[in-house]
Amino acid sequence: MKIGLDIMGGDYAPKATVLGAIAAHQNLSENQHLVLFGDKNEAIPILKEQNFNPDHFEFVHTTEVIGMGEHPTKAIVQKPNSSISVGFQMLKEGKIDAFASAGNTGAMLVGAMFSVKAIQGVLRPAISAIIPKEKGGFAILLDAGANADCKPEHLTQFGIMGSLFSKYVYQIEIPKVGLMNLGEEAEKGNLITQTTYPLLKETAQINFIGNIEGRDLFNDKADVIVCDGFTGNIILKLAESFYVLTLKRGLKDEFFDRFNYEQYGGSPILGVNAPVMIGHGISSPEAIKNMILHSKNMVESKIIERFQNAFNS
Amino acid sequence: MKIGLDIMGGDYAPKATVLGAIAAHQNLSENQHLVLFGDKNEAIPILKEQNFNPDHFEFVHTTEVIGMGEHPTKAIVQKPNSSISVGFQMLKEGKIDAFASAGNTGAMLVGAMFSVKAIQGVLRPAISAIIPKEKGGFAILLDAGANADCKPEHLTQFGIMGSLFSKYVYQIEIPKVGLMNLGEEAEKGNLITQTTYPLLKETAQINFIGNIEGRDLFNDKADVIVCDGFTGNIILKLAESFYVLTLKRGLKDEFFDRFNYEQYGGSPILGVNAPVMIGHGISSPEAIKNMILHSKNMVESKIIERFQNAFNS
Repeated sequence: MKIGLDIMGGDYAPKATVLGAIAAHQNLSENQHLVLFGDKNEAIPILKEQNFNPDHFEFVHTTEVIGMGEHPTKAIVQKPNSSISVGFQMLKEGKIDAFASAGNTGAMLVGAMFSVKAIQGVLRPAISAIIPKEKGGFAILLDAGANADCKPEHLTQFGIMGSLFSKYVYQIEIPKVGLMNLGEEAEKGNLITQTTYPLLKETAQINFIGNIEGRDLFNDKADVIVCDGFTGNIILKLAESFYVLTLKRGLKDEFFDRFNYEQYGGSPILGVNAPVMIGHGISSPEAIKNMILHSKNMVESKIIERFQNAFNS
Repeated sequence: MKIGLDIMGGDYAPKATVLGAIAAHQNLSENQHLVLFGDKNEAIPILKEQNFNPDHFEFVHTTEVIGMGEHPTKAIVQKPNSSISVGFQMLKEGKIDAFASAGNTGAMLVGAMFSVKAIQGVLRPAISAIIPKEKGGFAILLDAGANADCKPEHLTQFGIMGSLFSKYVYQIEIPKVGLMNLGEEAEKGNLITQTTYPLLKETAQINFIGNIEGRDLFNDKADVIVCDGFTGNIILKLAESFYVLTLKRGLKDEFFDRFNYEQYGGSPILGVNAPVMIGHGISSPEAIKNMILHSKNMVESKIIERFQNAFNS
């Protein structure tokens, strides 16, 4: 297995990304290799400083970097030699099995759509987000922001993808799929959720438990939280601000610590023909390490084949 | 001034409502009177128990009660002698200056629309919610759930109503109006927020500061937070669940204490021809007291006239 990492992506790259790669390496087995995309001349001194043998990694030297503020589509087209563009090229050619970056989120999404492309039958790939549960474990929320406006068919597919992810990556045998809504009753909602409810209900391959509400994000009601990208984005940023508030106010608590993105490292793009992981812009080495290990889990789970089977059949 | 209170509304009525009325009475001046709507035979023993002279209140004895789970429109029509129906009738006739209840939210909304009606020019009255700010003071969020789907013109009016409320009830000279969105940039958003942004921007009577994000709910960016009722409902329930989590986990903090609905007591319905306040179903006497005092502030601020002037001109 080869996992590609963009070492130029993120606010603290390449230092944080290279240190994260070193940390991840200790947790990989012999047949699991890291391929680093970026400026090798910047990476080598960091490795030397850590007395780490560069031969443990494969390097793909790239000369361009897509900045955090750049327009995604333009950047992907105009910078073919960027770490993100080259990474996706190799992912498309099957030379790596997964690709991860804490760089420009939009460029990662566009890069995935242009290179490995959406899985046949998937109308809209989605960014998913990992939600810590109060009782332990994680739920997956999608869409987290890739699709601001969604149709009921899109939301229904998010339910299917989330359910497969929860089952095969988180080993939850029968994941509970909930529709984020403004009330529990079946008839409650806005036009989109009201139309989505019956579609999810009649989807045989998922265990749809009905509507959930804002207060259910952290409880045990759902393992898969379905919403459009507008709603998902607001929920996630609000939840993150809450975590930041507890930190600022000196409230120490092991549950709120699990809000820390470092613990899971990245958000998978679901619905494209390869495992792709997007990291937080402020990723620390710990976050990068966990993003790599999360990518490895995705490869091991054969989640892409499972998606392909579900949507092509 | 006469403030009407439904003493039959809420999970702990009439005990909690009558005790709340007693507490509020101590904070009212001589020309401010409370009118209690409900079963007088239930109220009197509670007053006696507290050694409180019933003559301090005016009673309007009613024989029916709208339950928390009843269908709002049906209940209002089928129970003309309920505390909520009679309260709205007197509000319509100008016999009371404001009406407050911790009962069935939908029935309060329907009752307001049927009796005092929407202000001429207001397309959609909204339920507003009070948001504690980290730096002190409060913001107002609307819509909090009355209108799941909103058009850009509705959201623009929410901005105007929220701004007037913030100015005249909270004495914020130039309230900052923010549009809840998935990114700060003007072009970001879903179809509705993208269309609403220019409308808010060209609305001369408000100080539109642009888009805000989920993470800005508690900071100082906006005094008025504009969103549709679907988004508002999810935000509020999520925020409330955070507060409950801090309580459950024994985290004590004075900022998070301000999340407690008891401190402000109720959510005003904005855009109807009289001050109407909806309380939380689980209202305690303290919450009822504050809902009454909040109603008094609304009357004193002449907010209804200001709305009428803004939308009729």
